[in-house]
Amino acid sequence: MNAIADVSEKAGVTERRRIRMGAFTGPTSGLAPGNVQANLVILPKDLAHDFLRFAQANPRPCPVLAVSDAGSPFFPSLGHDIDMRTDLPRYRVWRDGVLVDEPLDVRDVWRDDLVGFAIGCSFSFEEALVADGIEVRHIALDCNVPMYRTNIPCVTAGVFSGPMVVSMRPMKPADAIRAVQITSRFPSVHGAPVHLGLPEAIGIPDISKPDYGDAVPVGADELPVFWACGVTPQAAIAQVKPPFCITHAPGMMLITDLKNTKLAVL
Amino acid sequence: MNAIADVSEKAGVTERRRIRMGAFTGPTSGLAPGNVQANLVILPKDLAHDFLRFAQANPRPCPVLAVSDAGSPFFPSLGHDIDMRTDLPRYRVWRDGVLVDEPLDVRDVWRDDLVGFAIGCSFSFEEALVADGIEVRHIALDCNVPMYRTNIPCVTAGVFSGPMVVSMRPMKPADAIRAVQITSRFPSVHGAPVHLGLPEAIGIPDISKPDYGDAVPVGADELPVFWACGVTPQAAIAQVKPPFCITHAPGMMLITDLKNTKLAVL
Repeated sequence: MNAIADVSEKAGVTERRRIRMGAFTGPTSGLAPGNVQANLVILPKDLAHDFLRFAQANPRPCPVLAVSDAGSPFFPSLGHDIDMRTDLPRYRVWRDGVLVDEPLDVRDVWRDDLVGFAIGCSFSFEEALVADGIEVRHIALDCNVPMYRTNIPCVTAGVFSGPMVVSMRPMKPADAIRAVQITSRFPSVHGAPVHLGLPEAIGIPDISKPDYGDAVPVGADELPVFWACGVTPQAAIAQVKPPFCITHAPGMMLITDLKNTKLAVL
Repeated sequence: MNAIADVSEKAGVTERRRIRMGAFTGPTSGLAPGNVQANLVILPKDLAHDFLRFAQANPRPCPVLAVSDAGSPFFPSLGHDIDMRTDLPRYRVWRDGVLVDEPLDVRDVWRDDLVGFAIGCSFSFEEALVADGIEVRHIALDCNVPMYRTNIPCVTAGVFSGPMVVSMRPMKPADAIRAVQITSRFPSVHGAPVHLGLPEAIGIPDISKPDYGDAVPVGADELPVFWACGVTPQAAIAQVKPPFCITHAPGMMLITDLKNTKLAVL
């Protein structure tokens, strides 16, 4: 991913500036509509290669949009003047796998050996679904998407391993088929669903009890449709317990200057 | 569809010649592999426009590959020297909606006011599924595909109306998702599924009792996946009861010179 920032640059810059100044500290859903938003993972350099190999081997849950130079807080390929230390509304700081802080910026814990990974986020394909007239339940209900740990193992790479985490959107069957078509066009933001219809087959015993996010109702005339989820790397990190790690706080993403429509391969 | 016949012409010509001479009278599945096979409907000219409008309005079940000139038994756009009166292994002749004969050729009932319609067939996309490593159950079991009348109404056009008929293939969820991707590339042979997972939602009370074809088992770890079916025009014809009509006999299709791969839009 080295797409060039385009006319949507302005909205992205405006929102990041607001966030950088501390004027906005909430979830980024709905900000700079049309712009790609990204999950953020920041790791010490000595773990970066294994993590990138893990992402490369598991592109459905971990589609990498950009990797920073070690020690550099910038993602020049994702947008103008992005500073990953200040431009997200809230962060999570982890030490030995334990969440130790949720600060508004991470300048004071920044180190010269850190490498940032921007990972694709389902906001991009949800925008395409909504544009096609398909109801996305958690958007309609204004809550967080339900997410589940599955029995689908990720491919192990170096020290990183763990289960695939999936997000779930209930849909009528004809909408589910259309959603496969639409999201297949977006391989860099999780792509097509990985499963639908039979949650127990992927190790989800109770659809009403997500492991992350909020439960949403599934109608008798609907199927649960599951996509690989960007929380998967966090599950792997929780398992590896690196001495130091920074991630975005849930729902508080990096707003880039890329357009979602530019991610479509067809 | 006006694709040019190509190298596969030879196998198509060979098989049609065998059939024309009466040397082959069985189902055409597996003949001239790679070649497009088609459903055939032949109607008097005074019904032809309504039927073509019906097909145009219902492209998922009735994808038209070619329409002949009135009185001409040829489909030049589908292949070399095709004669629709002799080149299918077996026909069905209908009078006032009643099946009156199943002859090996229809030269003796041919009329100068007849118009032939070649309609896309699921054999084309099944070939693509099998090539991708997806099991197609009725092929594996060497029986006919199960087909069902649904509660999905076709769009009415002139005198023609009726329910959509669907074919069903059981698949594991991940294969069903892959099958949506593969068959979406083939809109001229039914395209993507119209439904999956909840047969009762489209008026199918018992999946083990198809209205046409043979029942196939659906595993507990599988979903029934439904495609619009080329039997739909026959269901409409049964309802309209035209004074005269000829169709192919089930499974005994018109073998063309077109290549299935050429039908892929992507």
